[in-house]
Amino acid sequence: MNNNPDMPTALDLPPVSPMPEGMAGYFDKCVEKLGMVPNVLRAYAFDSDKFDAFSAMYNDLMLADSALTKLEREMIAVAVSSVNRCYYCLVSHGAAVRALSGDPELGERLAMNYRTAKLDTRQRAMLDFAVKMTEQSYRIEEADRETLRKAGFDDRAIWDMAAVAGFFNMTNRMASATDMRPNPEYHGQAR
Amino acid sequence: MNNNPDMPTALDLPPVSPMPEGMAGYFDKCVEKLGMVPNVLRAYAFDSDKFDAFSAMYNDLMLADSALTKLEREMIAVAVSSVNRCYYCLVSHGAAVRALSGDPELGERLAMNYRTAKLDTRQRAMLDFAVKMTEQSYRIEEADRETLRKAGFDDRAIWDMAAVAGFFNMTNRMASATDMRPNPEYHGQAR
Amino acid sequence: MNNNPDMPTALDLPPVSPMPEGMAGYFDKCVEKLGMVPNVLRAYAFDSDKFDAFSAMYNDLMLADSALTKLEREMIAVAVSSVNRCYYCLVSHGAAVRALSGDPELGERLAMNYRTAKLDTRQRAMLDFAVKMTEQSYRIEEADRETLRKAGFDDRAIWDMAAVAGFFNMTNRMASATDMRPNPEYHGQAR
Amino acid sequence: MNNNPDMPTALDLPPVSPMPEGMAGYFDKCVEKLGMVPNVLRAYAFDSDKFDAFSAMYNDLMLADSALTKLEREMIAVAVSSVNRCYYCLVSHGAAVRALSGDPELGERLAMNYRTAKLDTRQRAMLDFAVKMTEQSYRIEEADRETLRKAGFDDRAIWDMAAVAGFFNMTNRMASATDMRPNPEYHGQAR
Amino acid sequence: MNNNPDMPTALDLPPVSPMPEGMAGYFDKCVEKLGMVPNVLRAYAFDSDKFDAFSAMYNDLMLADSALTKLEREMIAVAVSSVNRCYYCLVSHGAAVRALSGDPELGERLAMNYRTAKLDTRQRAMLDFAVKMTEQSYRIEEADRETLRKAGFDDRAIWDMAAVAGFFNMTNRMASATDMRPNPEYHGQAR
Amino acid sequence: MNNNPDMPTALDLPPVSPMPEGMAGYFDKCVEKLGMVPNVLRAYAFDSDKFDAFSAMYNDLMLADSALTKLEREMIAVAVSSVNRCYYCLVSHGAAVRALSGDPELGERLAMNYRTAKLDTRQRAMLDFAVKMTEQSYRIEEADRETLRKAGFDDRAIWDMAAVAGFFNMTNRMASATDMRPNPEYHGQAR
Repeated sequence: MNNNPDMPTALDLPPVSPMPEGMAGYFDKCVEKLGMVPNVLRAYAFDSDKFDAFSAMYNDLMLADSALTKLEREMIAVAVSSVNRCYYCLVSHGAAVRALSGDPELGERLAMNYRTAKLDTRQRAMLDFAVKMTEQSYRIEEADRETLRKAGFDDRAIWDMAAVAGFFNMTNRMASATDMRPNPEYHGQAR
Repeated sequence: MNNNPDMPTALDLPPVSPMPEGMAGYFDKCVEKLGMVPNVLRAYAFDSDKFDAFSAMYNDLMLADSALTKLEREMIAVAVSSVNRCYYCLVSHGAAVRALSGDPELGERLAMNYRTAKLDTRQRAMLDFAVKMTEQSYRIEEADRETLRKAGFDDRAIWDMAAVAGFFNMTNRMASATDMRPNPEYHGQAR
Repeated sequence: MNNNPDMPTALDLPPVSPMPEGMAGYFDKCVEKLGMVPNVLRAYAFDSDKFDAFSAMYNDLMLADSALTKLEREMIAVAVSSVNRCYYCLVSHGAAVRALSGDPELGERLAMNYRTAKLDTRQRAMLDFAVKMTEQSYRIEEADRETLRKAGFDDRAIWDMAAVAGFFNMTNRMASATDMRPNPEYHGQAR
Repeated sequence: MNNNPDMPTALDLPPVSPMPEGMAGYFDKCVEKLGMVPNVLRAYAFDSDKFDAFSAMYNDLMLADSALTKLEREMIAVAVSSVNRCYYCLVSHGAAVRALSGDPELGERLAMNYRTAKLDTRQRAMLDFAVKMTEQSYRIEEADRETLRKAGFDDRAIWDMAAVAGFFNMTNRMASATDMRPNPEYHGQAR
Repeated sequence: MNNNPDMPTALDLPPVSPMPEGMAGYFDKCVEKLGMVPNVLRAYAFDSDKFDAFSAMYNDLMLADSALTKLEREMIAVAVSSVNRCYYCLVSHGAAVRALSGDPELGERLAMNYRTAKLDTRQRAMLDFAVKMTEQSYRIEEADRETLRKAGFDDRAIWDMAAVAGFFNMTNRMASATDMRPNPEYHGQAR
Repeated sequence: MNNNPDMPTALDLPPVSPMPEGMAGYFDKCVEKLGMVPNVLRAYAFDSDKFDAFSAMYNDLMLADSALTKLEREMIAVAVSSVNRCYYCLVSHGAAVRALSGDPELGERLAMNYRTAKLDTRQRAMLDFAVKMTEQSYRIEEADRETLRKAGFDDRAIWDMAAVAGFFNMTNRMASATDMRPNPEYHGQAR
């Protein structure tokens, strides 16, 4: 076991060395924008192809154009991570919800029990769908998609919602499987 | 709802047109190798960036070098999909297990209840971990990783195992959320 | 443990010897009609009274006159066995659904997740009831029976439906408890 | 709905008329021995073949020779019915455990939570197996059967145990599905 | 372990000695009214402050003025204890329901599966709420409180209902955690 | 519904007026020590007896002498509240863990998934017991108490642990049932 708290996970997987230019540049940009390199990126740095594939998918899902705002995508991330009780993602994406919303309490409510948050009908439908996908995806049927359409989402928005909820069901499990350790900076952010 | 059975999902998301060269080439290669374009690829074809990100991650996980054989990665895919009761992935990856193993019954056992399959200790430990990640990832602790190490997996193999199990927890949910429809060709393959 | 794959279960219970005439005749009829003796019958052959009681109940439930067609009774068998993840019954009754319906995909959908199958209202109500009986029978109330009546079932049909669903909740558990092994012939049938 | 509390279930299925001689004789014997006709028998009386099949299987399982005593078979019945929260079977077989054991508290403990009963290792292993079969039969493996063998059960006893546990998983569900109503006489028996 | 069946729990916690006057008087009153000292009180007798706090809360909840009758509060106690499978509380409060209602069967139905009891709309809504609080309190929302208001409960009655249901979720767990042993007198009462 | 965010719950239950001297004094002491009156106390202020019973039990459990430190009792509170996803208690007792431990991350880990916290054997055994009491108290047996004794707890400490875990299973449910609203001051405390 990797007990060194400075390492991003419990697995002994040192970063590729020397670090490829693209990865190094990405890390520099993180430091510039966020003041740190999120540990999930450090965790993937042992393999260049895996790093590229993960960051490409992440950036497309969370930052590219979408009918869902960036805040809404982070809200899905936190509601899904709450069901899965993923410490890494609750800490890092909880901070993102607090920062993007300017509403620290919203981040806490989504991390602990999204049903207690005051949400409009559209956002509530979005999170209900993401949580159903997380808890029992095999029970999703056309009626669930119709509920989303009635709440104002078109089919492209439904895809994006499902893709974000699906993605965090992957990363939550990666984080728990490897004991991924959130950067301590997140804890105090936007409280 | 998209009721047209020829469409890859229940969402109305037609492919980008004209199809970018890279995607078209990829589709051609699929037809050449598999005799068809798997519907999961057709489902992502509405957006070039999403298509590229998905196929890059898929190919790295399932086809790149790893301490896990291709068959073992497919076995994880099927065991995870069985927990999530994902029709698309059980059909398509069930066929892959039958074909790669030359053991049709193995594919059926993994799809229905992997505990009934005759597996050696190493593969059983691998599937137990993948299924625990799927059912209750938040209960994974160092003891679970130690069990894998004792079964002969190094930390890189553990990463790969977790990554495949995580990935199918994403795609199972995308498939259920969008009613993804498996190509009919899979049903009769390698029976 | 009985590791001999030719034995019908993991229990060491050889058939009564000499085989009683009735049982022997029954086995002959199976070979004539099905080309084999289903292993569930071989499993019960260690005791003549148990064999007779089981086959009498099975034949009455699955073959006698009923408002439910034989295919519908097999559909219930598969949907129930899917919840219970019973390998023996999914293999043997999955084959029966494929054969009786002439629709191989229907068998697969019921075995993996009946919610993805295209069913008319009547058959969907029937399987919803059978699955509720399987998952949480203690929550069934008059409203559930009323739903069936509105879907066109009379009280006798409701009894038959409940009896078939109940029966497979018994046999699924017998099969799992004894590691009952399906005849290999089933795998390729009606694909 | 059949609201008449004198009817054995909520289904409107009157007994065959005239009652066949065998059934009538069976009812007479019940009255003679038990002072009543158990409602489960009245429930099956609408169809002679079903009545015969059910009573043949019941009598073989609960009364024929076995390595399990009659009390032990009733103990399994109650522990299984407790998991399934089946009112009919808890009332009727709870009374049987109280009567056969001469220990009213034992009946209550098994009906409410068998883990609180003082049981020897053998009977505890037996009920643990029956309850695992009820809660998650798909997780039973050879190790579970080995535990029973170490507790002193041979393979025939394991079969009998599984058969009784399986049977009550059927009848519990039939009782809940049809709102089967226990004879009021049971309540005060052997308190 | 405290194996002495005369002791109120498995913990070795003898009563304060000499017994404080208040506690002694309370015990006398129990003997006078109930013919015994309920073991839950004997269990708390090792500490005077804990005894006082527990009995003050118990008496306020179960005996003080409320829009809920004493029987209704006992009905909640039993329905909650049934979900938690708490032997002590099912035995003691089951007896209370039988005695207060004069309907022995009602006590049995609530202990085994309250959904099978014939209840009016108001009492059914009350028990549905108490059971939802017990099974998944985090899913309770304003709609659940509105259902109660429509069934005729004002906000004070809702508080009382929640308080009783909450209290038994505490005491059920205390009883199971300490192996609390019900006084044998309860078993035969009001049958 | 009481939508006024200044009210302590969704129930319309104004405080007794005039406020009894004892309650008023208690509130003054809260303001003096904590800078606020915790909303759970304001919630109980509608009835003097209920207020007194609740605060007596709370103070005895959380503040009186015990083999468990005050921090350990708060740790139990948070681990239990996490299972029950109780927003009120996670916010208020999460703040207490952060403050008493001087380790903000500990509070977050317990609120999100206590299995990820670095705990010594004794504290881990304590939280495992509290969480088992919360998730499935009916499965607690003597072996669980023996595990605690081996971890260094005597029977009085086991009682205290069970009592705190039981208590939060009550208050979590009261908070969810009434939509109890945590004072906003907690959010920024001891981050």
